[in-house]
Amino acid sequence: MKPPIGRDTRLCMSLSARPGNFGSRFQNHLYEALGLDYVYKSFTTQNLPAAIGGIRALGIRGCAISMPFKEAVIPLIDTLEASARAIRSINTIVNDDGRLTGYNTDYSAVRTLAEQSGLDRAAPFILRGSGGMAKAVAAALRDGGFHNGTILARNAQSGPALAARYGLRWQAASEGLSAPFLINASPLGMAGADEAVLAFTPAQIAAAAVVFDVVAVPLETPLLAAARAAGKRLITGGDVAVLQALAQFELYTGVTPTPAQVEQAAAFARTG
Amino acid sequence: MKPPIGRDTRLCMSLSARPGNFGSRFQNHLYEALGLDYVYKSFTTQNLPAAIGGIRALGIRGCAISMPFKEAVIPLIDTLEASARAIRSINTIVNDDGRLTGYNTDYSAVRTLAEQSGLDRAAPFILRGSGGMAKAVAAALRDGGFHNGTILARNAQSGPALAARYGLRWQAASEGLSAPFLINASPLGMAGADEAVLAFTPAQIAAAAVVFDVVAVPLETPLLAAARAAGKRLITGGDVAVLQALAQFELYTGVTPTPAQVEQAAAFARTG
Repeated sequence: MKPPIGRDTRLCMSLSARPGNFGSRFQNHLYEALGLDYVYKSFTTQNLPAAIGGIRALGIRGCAISMPFKEAVIPLIDTLEASARAIRSINTIVNDDGRLTGYNTDYSAVRTLAEQSGLDRAAPFILRGSGGMAKAVAAALRDGGFHNGTILARNAQSGPALAARYGLRWQAASEGLSAPFLINASPLGMAGADEAVLAFTPAQIAAAAVVFDVVAVPLETPLLAAARAAGKRLITGGDVAVLQALAQFELYTGVTPTPAQVEQAAAFARTG
Repeated sequence: MKPPIGRDTRLCMSLSARPGNFGSRFQNHLYEALGLDYVYKSFTTQNLPAAIGGIRALGIRGCAISMPFKEAVIPLIDTLEASARAIRSINTIVNDDGRLTGYNTDYSAVRTLAEQSGLDRAAPFILRGSGGMAKAVAAALRDGGFHNGTILARNAQSGPALAARYGLRWQAASEGLSAPFLINASPLGMAGADEAVLAFTPAQIAAAAVVFDVVAVPLETPLLAAARAAGKRLITGGDVAVLQALAQFELYTGVTPTPAQVEQAAAFARTG
């Protein structure tokens, strides 16, 4: 049983342009289940430096960072954990007595999920996208042992640049491209303008063994629906969301919940 | 029933050198009882400007201000409500879309309690103290119609200055001084160095009708204990604490709880 909020309660928070409810519900549910004297609250801001200054001045324990702040926040904090430094994008700040460290728990979640996919590391993959999330995914795949891949990205600057950085091939379009491991890290299928767009072709899906969609909203994208219908093994944006939120929880509290506690918190968070 | 904390939940907070639990427990209990989507958390800070900048940048709805920040915070906010401007001390910030207004709810609580004391406005009073709280009390008494008083304060600068400002007399020591209305706004009797000190003499207490101790910690000061034993009518620092916290609650939420709800929240807050 969590104690009532009082002078010793620690606040964790999130900063994003459009806050959702997943983080608040997931973290607060675990605080409650584990009896931890923490509370979690989402925020948005028009003034990122002042918001980060407030985190420091108020001793706020941790902060999840979402779009569009993942790169802009870097000059405002003190140090970057190694993988966050490599991909120059953070989604988590931990405040140790005023010293702010940046992490990227999307990176670590994607890496863990790729490692647990059951795929041979030599299996070819196609990574769709070349934006901030695609950078984190490319690094996570490389560090997880996956080297044999192609970046599929329409952008003729960021696409080949990302491919070159991680020793991958680049194609602007899908023609003639198939692989057993498909990963979508583009906005295709995400709630918004491209919500109805299938990130890979039906032929590519048919030829794959594992389909990984990093998009978390909606939980069921056109890509996942098609891959599910085709009987493929799936890794979902929902899996990433839970695993990265769990990593944040552990960084903030130093406590590791049981898998059952995590599943209960995730189920509660999804209903919000 | 209060909804789970989510994206629409509003944060209210406090800033003080040594946070207590009263505010958190009182406000959160009322949010729960009234089903309001708010959460309240106390903070301290080593960097007041950054903390206030954070309140603005994060859209934190309101902030209670305690010692030692009540005057230092004034240049950091946008505007002062009239009574706060007069006493140059605030204990409450309300944030309306980034515009920060300062209030002094100690002032309004003391004024209300003095007005409800049943005393004739012409009754002489003795106000002990000449610090920040004594200034707020002197203003509240004057605005509540009490003009016939003496400042009892050892400090030969702030004592006569406060007396002159409000058209009162000043004495440095108690000799020959008695009145039906005694008000202690000094630290005498407060937890700390002067905890065992009686703020007025037994003779002064015996001659009084109403004894008002603004000190809230501990709830039962030597002055209140002596006045209670002598059968005097009492107004306590606990009364001020509840009434000023209620005023903050109303400023932050726009909602007025019932007296029974206030009493329940106060009883819960006192046990923390």
